[in-house]
Amino acid sequence: MRRTSFSDMSCSIARTLEQVGDWWTLLLVREAFFGTRRFGEFQSHLGIAPNVLTQRLQDLVQHGILEVTAASENGRALDYRLTDKGRDLFPIIVALAQWGDRHAPAPGGPPVVIVDRDLQRPIAPLQVRADDGRVLQARDVAVKLTRG
Amino acid sequence: MRRTSFSDMSCSIARTLEQVGDWWTLLLVREAFFGTRRFGEFQSHLGIAPNVLTQRLQDLVQHGILEVTAASENGRALDYRLTDKGRDLFPIIVALAQWGDRHAPAPGGPPVVIVDRDLQRPIAPLQVRADDGRVLQARDVAVKLTRG
Repeated sequence: MRRTSFSDMSCSIARTLEQVGDWWTLLLVREAFFGTRRFGEFQSHLGIAPNVLTQRLQDLVQHGILEVTAASENGRALDYRLTDKGRDLFPIIVALAQWGDRHAPAPGGPPVVIVDRDLQRPIAPLQVRADDGRVLQARDVAVKLTRG
Repeated sequence: MRRTSFSDMSCSIARTLEQVGDWWTLLLVREAFFGTRRFGEFQSHLGIAPNVLTQRLQDLVQHGILEVTAASENGRALDYRLTDKGRDLFPIIVALAQWGDRHAPAPGGPPVVIVDRDLQRPIAPLQVRADDGRVLQARDVAVKLTRG
């Protein structure tokens, strides 16, 4: 990529990181994609301290990435679910997983793979594409000001 | 995604985050994609404290994401460049930027867009795809153990 404006370009990435640029936050989002809904499940799956979990869930709800609903009629149990905004994090989660599979693998290779539910075959590596579908490398793109 | 094994699945994402799951680290990688090479440039573009910058650059070199080369013959100036492993972070950077453009935009919309250098048109939104090219949503994938 060629430089146009650092302070401008930093916006979108920095703004994303302000909302999800925390280790625990992204692992919570990953759990939510796996179907985790309850406080206790998040806690046991991640081994996260309750006070940290409370804060991170609150942050995610405040950012509109998770929404809270009453899981039962008496309203005591709460469900945390991804909103549309949260579900749009899917490519980020996949990109992180695929890079880790390739460059920071567990000994013996990745223990699990993300598969297409229909074919049960591993999904394709994420690729950056042009508007017309051509696959692009970093050297093939530039950043462009949208307003003077 | 359906759950297969949390502790297993956590590997790849958690392992990625161990290497790049730090706000400054990803912004340094972004800068490197923009063509930033020198310590002083990273510092002035990001407004990062020198001691923090030194540590983060060291971490990135240690993880094999950046490599250091002598920029001049006397060897005093050092260049930090992305390795192949570092360049493979491109989809992560694009995914973060696109999510931010959509869900955490600057007032008035994104000030810059990533364009295809040939067409000068905005690149396509990143899409997760099956092996046969079908576009997949989170609900269309599952995680599968690769070994018993």
